[in-house]
Amino acid sequence: MPDYLFVGKSIPRTIEADKVTGKAVYINDLRRPGMLYGKILYSTHAHARIKRIDASKARRLQGVRAVLTGRDIPDVRVGFLKDQTVLKKDVVRQFRDEVAAVAAITPEIAEEALSLIEVEYEPLPAVFDPIEAMKEGAPLVHETDARGRPVKSNILPLPWKFSVGDMEQARKEAAFVTKDHVSTTWVNQCCMGTSGCVAEFDQSNNLTLYSPTNVIFGHIGRISEYFSRIGLAGKKIRVVNPVVGGSFGTKLDTDIYEFIAIQLALNTRKPVKILFDREEEFRALPPRQPAVFTIEQGCDREGRLVFRHCEAVLDNGAYTSWGATTPSVMIMPMSSLYRVPNVYFKATCVYTNNIYAQAMRGYGNPQATFAVETSMDSLAEAAGIDPAEFRLINRNQPGDETPMNLKITSCGLEECIRAVKERLQWDEKKKARQKTRGLGMASLIHVAGGARVTKSDGHGIMVKLDEFGHVDVIESGTDQGQGSPTVISQIVAEALGVRPEDVFITFGDTALALWDAGTHASRHTFMAGNAALIACAKAKRQILDMAVDIIPKIVKLNFKRMKRKDPGFAEPDLDYGLIADPEDLDIRDRMIFPKKEPDHPYFRVPISDILRNGLHVGIGESRVVAAEAFYDPPTEMLNREMKGNLSMTYAFGTTGVEVEVDEETGDVRILNLVAAHDVGKAMNPTLLLGQIYGAGYTGVGYGLTEEIKVRNGRVMNPSFRDYQMLTAMDVVPIEPVIVEPDDKDGPYGAKGVGEPGLVPTAPAIANAVYDAIGVRIRDLPITPEKILTALKQKKGGMNV
Amino acid sequence: MPDYLFVGKSIPRTIEADKVTGKAVYINDLRRPGMLYGKILYSTHAHARIKRIDASKARRLQGVRAVLTGRDIPDVRVGFLKDQTVLKKDVVRQFRDEVAAVAAITPEIAEEALSLIEVEYEPLPAVFDPIEAMKEGAPLVHETDARGRPVKSNILPLPWKFSVGDMEQARKEAAFVTKDHVSTTWVNQCCMGTSGCVAEFDQSNNLTLYSPTNVIFGHIGRISEYFSRIGLAGKKIRVVNPVVGGSFGTKLDTDIYEFIAIQLALNTRKPVKILFDREEEFRALPPRQPAVFTIEQGCDREGRLVFRHCEAVLDNGAYTSWGATTPSVMIMPMSSLYRVPNVYFKATCVYTNNIYAQAMRGYGNPQATFAVETSMDSLAEAAGIDPAEFRLINRNQPGDETPMNLKITSCGLEECIRAVKERLQWDEKKKARQKTRGLGMASLIHVAGGARVTKSDGHGIMVKLDEFGHVDVIESGTDQGQGSPTVISQIVAEALGVRPEDVFITFGDTALALWDAGTHASRHTFMAGNAALIACAKAKRQILDMAVDIIPKIVKLNFKRMKRKDPGFAEPDLDYGLIADPEDLDIRDRMIFPKKEPDHPYFRVPISDILRNGLHVGIGESRVVAAEAFYDPPTEMLNREMKGNLSMTYAFGTTGVEVEVDEETGDVRILNLVAAHDVGKAMNPTLLLGQIYGAGYTGVGYGLTEEIKVRNGRVMNPSFRDYQMLTAMDVVPIEPVIVEPDDKDGPYGAKGVGEPGLVPTAPAIANAVYDAIGVRIRDLPITPEKILTALKQKKGGMNV
Repeated sequence: MPDYLFVGKSIPRTIEADKVTGKAVYINDLRRPGMLYGKILYSTHAHARIKRIDASKARRLQGVRAVLTGRDIPDVRVGFLKDQTVLKKDVVRQFRDEVAAVAAITPEIAEEALSLIEVEYEPLPAVFDPIEAMKEGAPLVHETDARGRPVKSNILPLPWKFSVGDMEQARKEAAFVTKDHVSTTWVNQCCMGTSGCVAEFDQSNNLTLYSPTNVIFGHIGRISEYFSRIGLAGKKIRVVNPVVGGSFGTKLDTDIYEFIAIQLALNTRKPVKILFDREEEFRALPPRQPAVFTIEQGCDREGRLVFRHCEAVLDNGAYTSWGATTPSVMIMPMSSLYRVPNVYFKATCVYTNNIYAQAMRGYGNPQATFAVETSMDSLAEAAGIDPAEFRLINRNQPGDETPMNLKITSCGLEECIRAVKERLQWDEKKKARQKTRGLGMASLIHVAGGARVTKSDGHGIMVKLDEFGHVDVIESGTDQGQGSPTVISQIVAEALGVRPEDVFITFGDTALALWDAGTHASRHTFMAGNAALIACAKAKRQILDMAVDIIPKIVKLNFKRMKRKDPGFAEPDLDYGLIADPEDLDIRDRMIFPKKEPDHPYFRVPISDILRNGLHVGIGESRVVAAEAFYDPPTEMLNREMKGNLSMTYAFGTTGVEVEVDEETGDVRILNLVAAHDVGKAMNPTLLLGQIYGAGYTGVGYGLTEEIKVRNGRVMNPSFRDYQMLTAMDVVPIEPVIVEPDDKDGPYGAKGVGEPGLVPTAPAIANAVYDAIGVRIRDLPITPEKILTALKQKKGGMNV
Repeated sequence: MPDYLFVGKSIPRTIEADKVTGKAVYINDLRRPGMLYGKILYSTHAHARIKRIDASKARRLQGVRAVLTGRDIPDVRVGFLKDQTVLKKDVVRQFRDEVAAVAAITPEIAEEALSLIEVEYEPLPAVFDPIEAMKEGAPLVHETDARGRPVKSNILPLPWKFSVGDMEQARKEAAFVTKDHVSTTWVNQCCMGTSGCVAEFDQSNNLTLYSPTNVIFGHIGRISEYFSRIGLAGKKIRVVNPVVGGSFGTKLDTDIYEFIAIQLALNTRKPVKILFDREEEFRALPPRQPAVFTIEQGCDREGRLVFRHCEAVLDNGAYTSWGATTPSVMIMPMSSLYRVPNVYFKATCVYTNNIYAQAMRGYGNPQATFAVETSMDSLAEAAGIDPAEFRLINRNQPGDETPMNLKITSCGLEECIRAVKERLQWDEKKKARQKTRGLGMASLIHVAGGARVTKSDGHGIMVKLDEFGHVDVIESGTDQGQGSPTVISQIVAEALGVRPEDVFITFGDTALALWDAGTHASRHTFMAGNAALIACAKAKRQILDMAVDIIPKIVKLNFKRMKRKDPGFAEPDLDYGLIADPEDLDIRDRMIFPKKEPDHPYFRVPISDILRNGLHVGIGESRVVAAEAFYDPPTEMLNREMKGNLSMTYAFGTTGVEVEVDEETGDVRILNLVAAHDVGKAMNPTLLLGQIYGAGYTGVGYGLTEEIKVRNGRVMNPSFRDYQMLTAMDVVPIEPVIVEPDDKDGPYGAKGVGEPGLVPTAPAIANAVYDAIGVRIRDLPITPEKILTALKQKKGGMNV
C-alpha cells in the first residue's frame, strides 16, 4: 500500500466555508449591472389549442421591459427530439408549457405582468397513461414530428432494444422462471438551490450564460445549435457556473427557462435573470420519469441465471429531454448486473400529456435495478435459494465481459454482498425470524470510469504554480456541492508534492477551462483525477528540471554565507551526482529532495525556493511552471446493438436493510441499512460517506415516501409540505462499508461514487418488506396505503 | 511588406461596448455578499505628534463594524524604503497621513464614524522645501530609519548617480557651454476612475483583493511581504482587476488604502470596499513629484555635444513610493537622448512634510527631458545653430550603444525630427518670423521593448481554442483603458489565422494568468505580443497536426456524399502530398489550406471543421488545442553603475509646436502640435492615435496648466474646478506622424507607445514660447503669470 500523504485522508472541504459564511454567490445572489428579472407564464391546460394571447396590458405596465409570446420569437424547435419550441404558439401539451415570458425591473413587476396576460384556450382531449397512449385512437400528443410530417402514434421513434443470446433456448433450459410486473413513479431531484440563470449578451451578441448546469460545454453545444437557427451562428457562448445548490440531474439538459432568459436578454439588450421558486421547481422542471416493467428471469437448478427478459414502458410526458434516453443506461443493469448469458430488453417511450422527464442520479439505473432486483428475489424464492446466496452465485467477477461488452476490471461485488450479510447478521436472523421484521438486499452496477455517451469523453485541466508554491488549477468540471474541488486538490497535492491547502481550483467556466464532457455519470473524480495526474506529471518535471539547475546554486550561496559568518567553515565535499538528473529527485510535502537521500542536509530544499529562483533567476531566463492535460480514455460508444465498453471501470455495491413493518399502520421502519460500495479507492472518506449517506437517503425516499403526484397531467403536491422528502426527522441508521479493490485505471485507484448509493436502496427495502410480512410491493413508493391494501388482499387470499 | 489581415488595422476596441452600455463592473460597481465600506481619517497637520486618539464614540455608532487606529493593527512598515506604517500611531508627517479607519455597513455611516474620532495633536516643526530640508538643522521628517537607527539628514539613502567619461576634459573641449536651472511641479494622474479596492478573506485567511492595479503580480509580492510580518505567511493572495478607469501610474504601487482595506477585512471577517472620492484622489494619492535640475551641456564648434552634467533635487515628500525611484529612469534621457559621450547625473531625493510621490506616465522621463531639451535649445542658441539642426546633428542612430549601454536597434529619430520640421514649415517660418509666434521642438527616448526593473521581465499567456474556432486567451496583463485586449486579439488572430472577433481575452486575474512583470513601462504590446506569438505558434502547430490527419478523412467523406447524390460522380485523383506534413499547411481568416495551392477545391477547409473533428473524432483520441508561453527577453538589469540594456528596443519621437503668445494676458495658444513617433509598427492606428492624443494633451497640461498647489504641505486645489486639466474646451490641434522602422524584436515589428507622447511635449512648448517672445520659462507649468512676470523682467532689462 503506497504511503499517501493526502489521498485517502478526510481533509475538510475547501470551498464550503464560503457557503456557511454567506460569501458564496449562488444564482440567487448574482447581480449584473442593469439586470432585469424574467418570469414565465405556464399553461392552464394539459392539452389545448391557444386561441388568443393578449399581452397588451402586460406590456403597458410600468417597469416591464419585454413581454414575449411564441409569436415574438423565432419558431425554432429545441429538445432531444426537437419536439417543442421555446414558447408555445399554437398548442399546449402539458401544464408546464411556457406560453409567455416577461422581463421587468423587479421580480414583483414581472409577476404582476404575468397576471395581466390574457390567454384563451380551446381544450383538446388528453391522455395521461402511457399504456392508454400507446393504443390506437388515443389522442395524439404531437400531430407531427420535428420535420412537420404527420405521425400516427404516441410512441417515440427511439432505438431502445437490446438482445443477446437465444431466448427461446434459454427458456427451455431454465429450471425456474418468474415474471414480475414492477413500476416506479415520478420523483423530484429536490435540489436545495432552485434553478435559475442569468443570460447576458455583449454588443456583438456573444452570450454569457450564468447557469448552474453541470455540463457547461454541453450547454454551449445546444445553445450554439439554437443560435445557428436564430441568426446568431458563430457567436461565442460562455457558460459560467455560480455556486450551485445541487443538481442530481436537473441541470444536465439546457432547460426551456434558459432559452427564455436568452430570448429576453436578446430582446431587451439587458442581462435577464430567471429564478425558480420551489413550486416552479416541482411543476416546471423535468423529474425522474415513471416506468413500468415486465420482467422475467430464469435460472437453472444450481441457481445460475440463464436468461433475463424485460419490457419497459416509460411515460415520456409531452416532450423529450434526457428522460427519453434513460433506457440506454437501463441496458447496463439489465444486461450486466449479475452474470446472465441471454438478455432481452426493450423500452418503449410514450408521449403523454404529463410533465416530461429528464435525468436524475443514476439515470435509468434505479428504475431498472428495482425491476431486476425484485425479480432476483422472486426467482431466488422460486428456486428455493437464499436470496443472498442466489446473488453470490450470480455475482459479477473481475475479468468478466458482460453481454453488453462491458469489461469488468476491478470488481468488489462479492465482498459487498458478504459484508452486507455479515453486518446484518443475515444468516442468523434468517434462521431466528422475528415476526414483521425482515431482511432484504439488492446490488448494482454502474459506470465509474467515465461514460462515453458523447463522442469525446474527455476532460481538460490546466495547472500552474506561482513562485510561492501555490498551485492554481483551472478545471473543466463543475461542483454541485459534492466537493470535487477538495478531491482534486488532494490528487494535485499528492501528485505535485505540495499540500491540499496550497491548491486553488477554478471551475465551471467555459472561457477558462479546456473541454469536458460534463460532471455527470459519476465521472468527475475518475476523469479529472486522471487529467490532473497527467498535468501534474508535466509540471513536476518542469520543477525538477529547474531544481537540477538551481539546487547547486543555492548550496553554493549557502556555503558563501556560512563562510562569511565563520571563516573557518570547511565546505563539505558533496556528491552532486545525487541531483544530476530530474529523475534523481522527488517532491513531497513542499520539499524537493534526492530520492537516494531524502534527508540530505544540503540538497533538501523547499519547492518555493526553486520556483522563486526559477522565476527571478534573471536576465531572459526566468521560468514559470504550467502544464495542461486532456484525458480521454480508450472506451467505446454504444454501437447500434447497444453494446460497447463505455467506461474504463464499473462500480459495484450492495445495499442490505432490515425493516420492521407495522401491520396496523403500514409503516416501514428501517432498523439498519448497510451500504457496501466498491469505490476503488476512497479518496476522501468523509466526502465519500457524504455521497453514500446522501444517495442512501434519497434511495430510502425513492423506496418509501417520495412521489410527485400527477393527476390528469397536473402536479398536485408542488411543495416540501406535500412532497415527502426525508428530513432530519426521518433518521435512517446507515452503516457504510467501503470496499477498495484499487482500480488499475482510476487515479490512485479511485472509481466514481456519485450515483451508486441510490440505485439498490429501494429494491433492498422492497425485498425486506416482503421478507417481513410476505407481501411484495412492486410499485414505488412503498406507502403505508399500499402495504395495508396488500395485507388486506393477502388476508383475503388474493395473490399479490 | 507582409500582407497582414488584422495587424495594422484600426479594428474597433473589443471591450469598450460594455463600458458605454453600463455593463462594465468598475470597482464602484463591485459588490460582494456582506460587504462593508471603509473610510479613512487623515491627519490635520503636516507634522505633529499624536497625543491621543479616542475612537470610542465611533465604535459605538450603530452600523460600525470596526474602527482601527495604529494601536489596533500590527506595527509593520511598508513602502519602498519601509518608512511608514499602515496607520500612523505616534507621529504624522504629512496631511495625507492615515490616522484611523472605519468599516461600516454603509459609506455614510463610515463617514459619520470618522467625524466621531477625536485626535489630539501636538504640532511639530515642518519643512516643505527640499533645498531647505537638505540643510543642517532642518526639522527631520524621520528621526530614524527603517531599522530604528537614528538619522541625521532628510536626504534619502539612494544610489542615483551616473557618471561616464571625463567631465573635466570634456569641459575643456567644449566650444560652447550653457547652464540652466529648470524645475517641475506636482501633477495628478487624473484618472477618470478614482481609486478603490475590495479586500476579502476566506476562512483560511487567503486573500482576494479586487484592485485596479496595473501590476497584479507585484501587488502579490508586496502584500505577501506584509503578510509574512503579520502572521499570515504563506497565505494565498489573489489579485483581480475590476474594469479600470485609468491608471497612469497611480495604481503601480500597493497603496496604503489597500493595506487598510486588508486590515479592516481581516478584523471584520467581511469583504471591505474602500473607494476614493475626487478630493481624496487629489489629497491622498501620490502624484508625479517635483524636481529641480541644474543642467550644463557643452558642444564643439560643429555643434556636437561633448558633455552633459546635471544635478537634480527631488521633493520626495514624507514617505517613499515609486517616486523615489524615478531617477533610475531619468538616467535614460540624461545619458541617452542624443549622442553625448560624457555624462554626469546625480539625483538627490529629500524627505519633506509634503505629499509623497509615485509613478506617472513616463516615470521620471518628462521631468528629465524637460531639463535636457530646455538645455538643448539654450545650447543651440549659444552655438548659433538652428535648434532643429542642432538636434539632427546629435540624433541617436540605429546601431548606437549609449553611455548607459542601451543598444539602439531600430531608431526613427531622424525621420521624426524631419517630419516635425516639414509639418511645421520650420525653415520657412523661422525665416518669415511673425511677432509673438514661435516654434519649438523636443525629442525623447524611452523603453519600448520591456523594462527589466525586476529580475524577471517576463509575461505569460495561455491560449486555447474551442471546437467552433473561438480562441480564449488568458493573459497576465491588465487593461486600464488603453485597449490592450484589442491589440492582443489582432496579434492572436493574425498568428493563428482566425479573426479578431473570434478572440476572447481574460486578463487581470493572478489566479488564472501566468506571471507578468506588470502593465507598465509601455511594455504590454511588446511583451504580451511576443508571448502571444510563441503560444500561437504552438497552438497552430497542434491544429495543423490534426489537419494532416483529418483533412483526408473529410475529403473522403465528402466524396462518399457526392457519390450518394450522384452515382456517376468520378472521384478526382488528388495529390495528398500537398497536405502530407503540418509544414505544408497554413491558416488564414479561419481557413486551413495547402501553402502550395491555397484555393485547392478539396483541401481548403474551415478551421472549425478540424477542431470539431479533432475533439469529436471519437474513442480515446479526442484532442483539444491549448498552449502557453512565457516570454522573458534577454535584456539586462541596471548594474551598480546604473548601466545595462534594460529593454529590447527603444522608442523615439519628436514633438514640435507652433505657439502664439498673448503678451497682454500671458496666454499661450498652441496653433499646431506635431507629434512624430517611432512606434516600430502601428498595430492598431486608431488605438495608437488614442495614446498619442491622450499623452499629447497630458503633455500640454503638464506644460501649461496642470499643478497641484501644495502650500505648507496642504493640497489647495483638490478638485477639477481648481486643478486645470485640459478639457474638451481646450482643443489642441494635434497632428500625429507615425514613423514605422519595423523593429526586429517587436511582435510584427511593434514597439511600446503608451508613455512617449507625453515626454517631449512640455519642453517643446517652452522652447516655442521662448522662440515667440524671447523669454524662457524654466519652471513648469508655463502659466500666464509666469510669462507676464518674465516679460516684465525682460522689459525691465533683467536677465531671465
